[in-house]
Amino acid sequence: MIRVGIYGATGYTGMELVRILQRHPGAEIAFVASQSQAGKTLRQVFPAAPALPLIAGAEAPLDEVDVAFLCLPHAAAAETAVVALAAGVRVIDLSADFRLRDAAAYAHWYAHTHPAPELLAEAIYGLTEVCRADLPGARLVANPGCYPTSVLLALRPLLLSNVPLAGPIITDSKSGVSGAGRTPSQTSHFVEVADNFSPYKIGRVHRHLPEMEQAIGWWRASAPPLVFSPHLLPVPRGILSTIYVTLGADATEANLRALYGDAYAGEPFVEVLPAGELASLAHVTYTNRCAIGLTLVGRTLILTSAIDNLIKGAAGQAVQNMNVMFGCAETAGL
Amino acid sequence: MIRVGIYGATGYTGMELVRILQRHPGAEIAFVASQSQAGKTLRQVFPAAPALPLIAGAEAPLDEVDVAFLCLPHAAAAETAVVALAAGVRVIDLSADFRLRDAAAYAHWYAHTHPAPELLAEAIYGLTEVCRADLPGARLVANPGCYPTSVLLALRPLLLSNVPLAGPIITDSKSGVSGAGRTPSQTSHFVEVADNFSPYKIGRVHRHLPEMEQAIGWWRASAPPLVFSPHLLPVPRGILSTIYVTLGADATEANLRALYGDAYAGEPFVEVLPAGELASLAHVTYTNRCAIGLTLVGRTLILTSAIDNLIKGAAGQAVQNMNVMFGCAETAGL
Amino acid sequence: MIRVGIYGATGYTGMELVRILQRHPGAEIAFVASQSQAGKTLRQVFPAAPALPLIAGAEAPLDEVDVAFLCLPHAAAAETAVVALAAGVRVIDLSADFRLRDAAAYAHWYAHTHPAPELLAEAIYGLTEVCRADLPGARLVANPGCYPTSVLLALRPLLLSNVPLAGPIITDSKSGVSGAGRTPSQTSHFVEVADNFSPYKIGRVHRHLPEMEQAIGWWRASAPPLVFSPHLLPVPRGILSTIYVTLGADATEANLRALYGDAYAGEPFVEVLPAGELASLAHVTYTNRCAIGLTLVGRTLILTSAIDNLIKGAAGQAVQNMNVMFGCAETAGL
Amino acid sequence: MIRVGIYGATGYTGMELVRILQRHPGAEIAFVASQSQAGKTLRQVFPAAPALPLIAGAEAPLDEVDVAFLCLPHAAAAETAVVALAAGVRVIDLSADFRLRDAAAYAHWYAHTHPAPELLAEAIYGLTEVCRADLPGARLVANPGCYPTSVLLALRPLLLSNVPLAGPIITDSKSGVSGAGRTPSQTSHFVEVADNFSPYKIGRVHRHLPEMEQAIGWWRASAPPLVFSPHLLPVPRGILSTIYVTLGADATEANLRALYGDAYAGEPFVEVLPAGELASLAHVTYTNRCAIGLTLVGRTLILTSAIDNLIKGAAGQAVQNMNVMFGCAETAGL
Repeated sequence: MIRVGIYGATGYTGMELVRILQRHPGAEIAFVASQSQAGKTLRQVFPAAPALPLIAGAEAPLDEVDVAFLCLPHAAAAETAVVALAAGVRVIDLSADFRLRDAAAYAHWYAHTHPAPELLAEAIYGLTEVCRADLPGARLVANPGCYPTSVLLALRPLLLSNVPLAGPIITDSKSGVSGAGRTPSQTSHFVEVADNFSPYKIGRVHRHLPEMEQAIGWWRASAPPLVFSPHLLPVPRGILSTIYVTLGADATEANLRALYGDAYAGEPFVEVLPAGELASLAHVTYTNRCAIGLTLVGRTLILTSAIDNLIKGAAGQAVQNMNVMFGCAETAGL
Repeated sequence: MIRVGIYGATGYTGMELVRILQRHPGAEIAFVASQSQAGKTLRQVFPAAPALPLIAGAEAPLDEVDVAFLCLPHAAAAETAVVALAAGVRVIDLSADFRLRDAAAYAHWYAHTHPAPELLAEAIYGLTEVCRADLPGARLVANPGCYPTSVLLALRPLLLSNVPLAGPIITDSKSGVSGAGRTPSQTSHFVEVADNFSPYKIGRVHRHLPEMEQAIGWWRASAPPLVFSPHLLPVPRGILSTIYVTLGADATEANLRALYGDAYAGEPFVEVLPAGELASLAHVTYTNRCAIGLTLVGRTLILTSAIDNLIKGAAGQAVQNMNVMFGCAETAGL
Repeated sequence: MIRVGIYGATGYTGMELVRILQRHPGAEIAFVASQSQAGKTLRQVFPAAPALPLIAGAEAPLDEVDVAFLCLPHAAAAETAVVALAAGVRVIDLSADFRLRDAAAYAHWYAHTHPAPELLAEAIYGLTEVCRADLPGARLVANPGCYPTSVLLALRPLLLSNVPLAGPIITDSKSGVSGAGRTPSQTSHFVEVADNFSPYKIGRVHRHLPEMEQAIGWWRASAPPLVFSPHLLPVPRGILSTIYVTLGADATEANLRALYGDAYAGEPFVEVLPAGELASLAHVTYTNRCAIGLTLVGRTLILTSAIDNLIKGAAGQAVQNMNVMFGCAETAGL
Repeated sequence: MIRVGIYGATGYTGMELVRILQRHPGAEIAFVASQSQAGKTLRQVFPAAPALPLIAGAEAPLDEVDVAFLCLPHAAAAETAVVALAAGVRVIDLSADFRLRDAAAYAHWYAHTHPAPELLAEAIYGLTEVCRADLPGARLVANPGCYPTSVLLALRPLLLSNVPLAGPIITDSKSGVSGAGRTPSQTSHFVEVADNFSPYKIGRVHRHLPEMEQAIGWWRASAPPLVFSPHLLPVPRGILSTIYVTLGADATEANLRALYGDAYAGEPFVEVLPAGELASLAHVTYTNRCAIGLTLVGRTLILTSAIDNLIKGAAGQAVQNMNVMFGCAETAGL
């Protein structure tokens, strides 16, 4: 039985983690921590949650757990990771702290010095389908961002192929509101979001951009530039990325579909959709799956990629990573 | 041309007032004031608004207006009313400050001393259909609360009739989220509201309860007690009150419908629905109307009453009051 | 391993049943049948479903199953029940066909002669918390309606107590749209439902009314009349019933809460909420639970009762019944 | 006073037209026609509509009107146009029948022979900002499609400029559900749409594609190919198109913004947003406006263009066209 601790349990990601782990046959929750709500029970914060006592992070009994999930703001996550690793606890960090391998890039995009740059080289970028072999020995896993998960799973087979690419890679991504977190703000107010739909942080602004560029660079040496346009959808959860890649040579949709079929054959959580079917949120919400559709129009390949941002885009993929790290069935609890 | 000033223009009610007054043929907006956003334009706060400059309330040119609308928090409203009245400006207050005639009741429900108790006797309770005759001479109008508007218009003909009542008057009321205002909070977060539906402040808790009891007392000496159960609907705007009154004697639905038809004959904004039709939000959103349905089941009369909380429940009724105060057509701009 | 067949698998209730049974440790789906979609796979009908082949009901291999779930229209359900029972298969019927014990009442409310009146006496009304002892020996279970589940669980402890009641029992109930089924209609069109909220079938019209009256009659000989007002909520799933019962004598909220606490002590799926907490959809969606809040105002007891209409109100309670019928843990799969 | 007849008044577009014309100071509705609902009043179809009697189209008194609006299915619209024009009535057709100038293209995309090809040369493509000069003398106006309105207004200044273009023009467009019409279907069922988001008809499938290509061809001789990806948003109304155009040479955002500012200077219904502001549905719903944002990322120009699909994308633009045709103020009623 894997003993688990959760830091930052009162956000949407933390809560989703609790929900998944509660029905996980091989894991048990040893503690749930929250800075802002310590002293209450989780049930007092979420009406559908179990009555687990919330403790302050500083009082977490690290000696009672095998792995800690960090659902904390960036910087706070890295500081907690240092403490947990020192106590011999493996860490799955759902913040952005260990996603970028370059401390200077981190400092640029997050506007402060990285709290633990010495750990960057060791952290595994936890797109499970990609890093699976590295997980059993990993001490520290950087769980990918939600937008990057939807985009990178869709792009990877193409980038690793020898299909030439021309023009920019454009990802027009749409996310449900839980992606913005649980802290109230004008932009998450029901009246502002309902009946509305709005792009935001278009251009080179969103912090998930360097994370995606980093992985694209790993997979193809001189890939075209990435254009990333996030939009806010009036739904609680789910991400759909519609990705446009202009190919540098003629191709057939059948060949591209075969390429993707081979790449994801046997994957329990990635579904390459049959011809004529496009990915939608209804394919994936409340599951750990990623659905990928392919449509070729002239030389433009249109990829539609859908995930549940809280599950495959956060808590679900974190548990998928834990499962592989500890030798459980990869699908356990998911 | 009526010259209008609006205090608190950056809330939902203030914004709705601007929208209505912009297309009003007999009124013009002289200033819009906001404590928190002074210095910006209204367009910077609402993307669909005109680019009116927002000034601080203290700098409002009261000598340039005939009437001031107060979309302010309670207490602040009363203080501003004093200043405006002293400057010879008529006041339509959309806060709760002048709704209760009894300063002690106000102090009890609002937990502070009334800032201007000397004005309470003078204030007109501005349910237009009821107070119409008093408006031309009024200096100060207390615009009714949104829930009370939906409930009182539905109850009044019955209360004024000689139909005996038994048992409590129960109003099960449901409101869209704009009724809770624009300040972000956990309870108005999109993810908490969407796909949810929740009662709140059931019992003798909500501040609209004494307002309704006061008017019920005016219309029937010994009315049964009122039970008021508000609920939060996952829609931006609209209130539906389903009201249950157990009659003290047999009656027919046809007679009751005739009673209501007579009471509201000729009213431009109150529609008594035909037999078999129930009020819904779709009858009234984006209008100044109140739709009232009647269904008699045994001795229980079920009234369904729908309004748009921001229009007939706030800004629209305020303009309707202004129209009568200044001798415009009552429907102008509405 | 309980072998299960599902008739009418392509409606919302059927689909929910598949979802639950897929993760049930002690049951396996032997077939899924659909009149309208036979020949397709379930995956072609619901993008998140498994690729089970849909067969015509008439071709269902009844000899391969222990129990059949009927998610069929009324009348069709009773006819299928006869066939299944004759084949030695136990039946859990999610339609209304076996809920009313009186064939004449059925004929009145459903406007046709009951297809199998000889089975009415045998059918167990499957509110699991009530009929638990009868389930192990049952051949035929009438799974309760969604509204009745929310209302009857909330009323039962009070009705069985010696607290005197006065005035009508009023239930103001609000349901998500999946309660109306998957067949497209004007009233379930997104544009008609979104931003709207509407009462419907108020009075003595809705077919769940006699079902509730029947159970109320079982539990208290001369109960007050029931007034039932259903409303359509702009959410996919969930029911909240706000129930008003005027007591015939003074009582304290604490005593009533104790009564309910005793009645549901140890129940895995019924939660009596602590003082001051009201039931909401967020307490129960995506679970098999019923949350019940109590508020006493004067002599009016206000019960708030929430369930997920597709789970505790249909597929979940059906599986809960199956679990007890076959000796599984009652919570298995739920 | 312009006398107006409306065919197909009971769809969303027809209903919006009634709403606009009711408050139009220079027009009056002479008749509303509906094939399916003739004999009822409009109020019986829409609870917020006036009680206008619905007549059969064949019985419409064409001698009493100056202009007919056709909110009919394609083919039926062209047939009615022939009748109305023969009666000396000017026609504004909101269907697709007169948008494509080439009868062969029409036959290809709409799968039947054009009912009135002799009128195609005469029909004005009614993007008001573009065709304004031709409207006073026009007998027949083809009101543009909703998607094309959002895309073409955003592209036109660029296409008419001398900025070179490279790569495809990609428009990732998202529409509210009213764009799909009022006829119930599985894809417009509330439960299928709410909490979902889905692309559809991606590739060379959607009938608005040739309409956009035709106009693009008018404005730039050898424009890059157009890629059009429509998506269904869980909102009742509004379209946002996010359009990606890769330029063939370096440019500055300021220069491009100036180009757009000049193109739309003085336009009452097109707003070019200031630097840093992106178009959203909240800019435009319930108005006749089109909001256009510009963001340059490397050599990719990202245009965000928002309209209300029922107003600027249909009924509002139709009235705008009528206003110019009959010499009213262009903004009258809007």
